[in-house]
Amino acid sequence: MSSQFGEKIADGVFSRYEGKLLTSERSDFQKIDVYDHPFFGRVLTLDDLIQTTTRDEFTYHEMLVHPALASRDRVERVLIIGGGDGGTLRHVLMHGASEVVMCEIDDAVIRLCRELLPSLSDGAFDDPRARVVIGDGAAFVADHEDAFDAIIVDGSDPVGPAVVLFSEDFYAACRRALRDGGVFISQTGSPIFQTDEFQMAYGNLSASFGACEPYLSFVPTYPGTLWSYMAATDGAQLRASSGIEARLRARGIECRLYSEEVHHGALALPPFVKELCETARPVPVPRG
Amino acid sequence: MSSQFGEKIADGVFSRYEGKLLTSERSDFQKIDVYDHPFFGRVLTLDDLIQTTTRDEFTYHEMLVHPALASRDRVERVLIIGGGDGGTLRHVLMHGASEVVMCEIDDAVIRLCRELLPSLSDGAFDDPRARVVIGDGAAFVADHEDAFDAIIVDGSDPVGPAVVLFSEDFYAACRRALRDGGVFISQTGSPIFQTDEFQMAYGNLSASFGACEPYLSFVPTYPGTLWSYMAATDGAQLRASSGIEARLRARGIECRLYSEEVHHGALALPPFVKELCETARPVPVPRG
Repeated sequence: MSSQFGEKIADGVFSRYEGKLLTSERSDFQKIDVYDHPFFGRVLTLDDLIQTTTRDEFTYHEMLVHPALASRDRVERVLIIGGGDGGTLRHVLMHGASEVVMCEIDDAVIRLCRELLPSLSDGAFDDPRARVVIGDGAAFVADHEDAFDAIIVDGSDPVGPAVVLFSEDFYAACRRALRDGGVFISQTGSPIFQTDEFQMAYGNLSASFGACEPYLSFVPTYPGTLWSYMAATDGAQLRASSGIEARLRARGIECRLYSEEVHHGALALPPFVKELCETARPVPVPRG
Repeated sequence: MSSQFGEKIADGVFSRYEGKLLTSERSDFQKIDVYDHPFFGRVLTLDDLIQTTTRDEFTYHEMLVHPALASRDRVERVLIIGGGDGGTLRHVLMHGASEVVMCEIDDAVIRLCRELLPSLSDGAFDDPRARVVIGDGAAFVADHEDAFDAIIVDGSDPVGPAVVLFSEDFYAACRRALRDGGVFISQTGSPIFQTDEFQMAYGNLSASFGACEPYLSFVPTYPGTLWSYMAATDGAQLRASSGIEARLRARGIECRLYSEEVHHGALALPPFVKELCETARPVPVPRG
């Protein structure tokens, strides 16, 4: 039997998907559903919002992980906040880190994804370099100083429990938790349909780090498809990166979306997005 | 009262919009509807497929017109095939052409767009350099030789009457209708959801021209949002373009999406799109 799911993207704009509901459960934090879908394969939704699918996960995970890590010669310790499906963990491990800590608040997401979307983690949870912490990412970051070469936020949009992951306090704590030359990365929503979120992230990151670089790509199952990420650094910026293809080859990474020219293309922001950046200010996050 | 419209994008994938239907008529060629939409403003659909909206038309028209014309120092005569809403005509005229011929098969589209979406053409139809021909674009092209500096196909997807605009015969006729150094441009669909169309266009254009350069951008109301265009030339390629910002400034063109860095970013194809190109072959178009 076919079930319908989908999202309200904006006033009068909706996505709708039809697939077979495989499982539905309510964890301590959210409703978790997994569907079989005729085009996108297995689909994970949290509180009815699509998080990832087996068919298009590469578009999100490659662009979340590779621009920052393929720009670095060495990445020893990486922290992932969120990322329960394991796709970010799998992609980070490709870069040869010696330890990757993943701090996910909801272990039910990990369990269901390992069972029903195993291609996303593809064994990454069993890698001896991977360490999973079940807990609050903001609290975990606040407990660490000078500890990571990269922090990657693979969380939900800034509503409900994930809203703190867009705050100036959280970003400042991430900066303290990074080693010299470290890089912070987060997904930051649609620059068409979620301009408030985009500007909140840009304003607060710019206030916390020496530089914030948004870049754009697309995720077919995210609302509006055009998707933004931001890299924040005090040192080498992503736009100054070179030698990316050589690093990808040396690490044996084969991409379907990312490449050195796509890296620089993604950083080439349209004027309307530059304008969103120029008019962004630090703002307190709204109550979740 | 609110009406619903939208498209089936793929198996189990649908877009849905809610707006107020302003007018609906059936011309000799198609059903034409115009809606008032709370986010996208005025929306034009042909046979229930969204063609353009007043809010996001700039994403499509800037990327269809500017990459080719801002790469050229001089563009004297331009042919537009289709483009009944007038947006392409308006953007082409910005580049200082001395004559722009627009060959549109359905004059009802022009009439309704001038009445209900006037911001798209914004007076372009009254420009003395603009000449509108109501008729079949393929036949018009076949009647001309060595006549245009650019031919821009602003048509529907290759189903029904527009399918001929993706054929090798049509592309070969366009090449003959172009002057030395001329450039051919067409929208070529979604590289995610319409891979057959993308490969048909690439295979047939590559067989007809010295070089075919796909480039990618996004149109929020097109199925899948990520959208492809192809430029075909026998001379200077788009990737070799420089001086774009200076030309835009000299012509007084202010863009919201396009810029010199976006130009080169759009030509930076992801590996999965390069693979679509490498495996494309010339194919006869299916019967409409």
